[in-house]
Amino acid sequence: MVSKNQIKLITSLQQKKYRIANQLFFAEGVKVIQELLQSNFELEHLYTTQHDFDTVLDSKKSLIHENDLKKISALTTPNSCLAVFKIPEEKPIIASGLIIALDDVRDPGNIGTILRLCDWFGVKQVICSKETVDIYNPKVVQATMGSITRVNVNYVDLPEYISQTELPVFGTFMDGENIYKTNLPKEAIVVMGNEANGISETIEEITKNRLSIPRFGDLQQAESLNVATATGIILSEFKRNLA
Amino acid sequence: MVSKNQIKLITSLQQKKYRIANQLFFAEGVKVIQELLQSNFELEHLYTTQHDFDTVLDSKKSLIHENDLKKISALTTPNSCLAVFKIPEEKPIIASGLIIALDDVRDPGNIGTILRLCDWFGVKQVICSKETVDIYNPKVVQATMGSITRVNVNYVDLPEYISQTELPVFGTFMDGENIYKTNLPKEAIVVMGNEANGISETIEEITKNRLSIPRFGDLQQAESLNVATATGIILSEFKRNLA
Repeated sequence: MVSKNQIKLITSLQQKKYRIANQLFFAEGVKVIQELLQSNFELEHLYTTQHDFDTVLDSKKSLIHENDLKKISALTTPNSCLAVFKIPEEKPIIASGLIIALDDVRDPGNIGTILRLCDWFGVKQVICSKETVDIYNPKVVQATMGSITRVNVNYVDLPEYISQTELPVFGTFMDGENIYKTNLPKEAIVVMGNEANGISETIEEITKNRLSIPRFGDLQQAESLNVATATGIILSEFKRNLA
Repeated sequence: MVSKNQIKLITSLQQKKYRIANQLFFAEGVKVIQELLQSNFELEHLYTTQHDFDTVLDSKKSLIHENDLKKISALTTPNSCLAVFKIPEEKPIIASGLIIALDDVRDPGNIGTILRLCDWFGVKQVICSKETVDIYNPKVVQATMGSITRVNVNYVDLPEYISQTELPVFGTFMDGENIYKTNLPKEAIVVMGNEANGISETIEEITKNRLSIPRFGDLQQAESLNVATATGIILSEFKRNLA
């Protein structure tokens, strides 16, 4: 059984203000929940329709009916389990190596995919502007496929942070230098912009290294690259000589 | 006004069998519809809530109320317009240059993003296995952002096609050769696999060139790359020396 109060609390966690008020978030599906359990995330409570998760104390889990899972799930087709976790304290920024900075990226699927790419390419730090979508949004947690446990994410005043960093700052722009012909350093901050508007003017002014992913084809009519696929191509270029 | 029969027809086009039966599909939003109109797609009928699309004959368009648009739209938040188009005849396969082959890619967002990437990188031909999601699925049409008009897509018996081609065939596998250290040809077929299972056994057997996108980081725990972001990285590698 899931009580009415529990349903109310868990569904409220789909909204950022209630996540902040309660300092809780939730994840769905065996794989993601297991990765969170194995990392330093503190379990509040696990709801599962199966006799699984043997390592979780009985006091911390409830066996529930599929119909109850539907009531608390954020998915159209609920998985077999949902777990509520405490939002951990933000860790200090790892101000070295390759860092991805997100300037108002709004789509949960995009930031989820970007965290997964960072995980793949060994990027340990993502810095987000305050307007970037919250990583504890259930859709982000889902899209990261567990990478949320391995990439450090901080929300900062991005223009301020970037104006003070000693690392070289890169951004992609239509008129930037061909990324394939640029010497890319091992340590840098790479700024990825908003889905509709790209990199904001304030950040553009302080971004000294302007890159561009060349567009091919006779017509060159392709609109643009999605911010997540562009991040993949850029990370691949920064890392390819180290492989 | 949209008649009950029109609502029934248009909503039925969300399903492949009715798209095939009627040889119709629909697109939503000014940008995508305009790109389809400017290309060789034959308009069946346009439904719009605005006084726009001046070039479309009055007999081919209806000014409708937002509430009616909601009834025919496949989107949670409908745009301002929806247009029904005839499904064009399949054009012959362009059997040269760089070709992307999709081996049972199922997610509409993924194939949409892949077509957008092909458009960006000047790839003119995509070959799909019969089980790959239909490109006239409304979610695919939406995700391509107009690229559907510039990339030729054919559905074929993929194992048969690949076993007969004279082009070199590449695929990505966990144990493949480091893609960053491989000489990649200008002309090739690159196979991208299913989201859950990767490239099928039948196709794997006839794929002579095994590539791998190296994984970085100390732990190397990242699960996998999404098929669309992997396609972006691979296309970038095949094209980077030509930019």
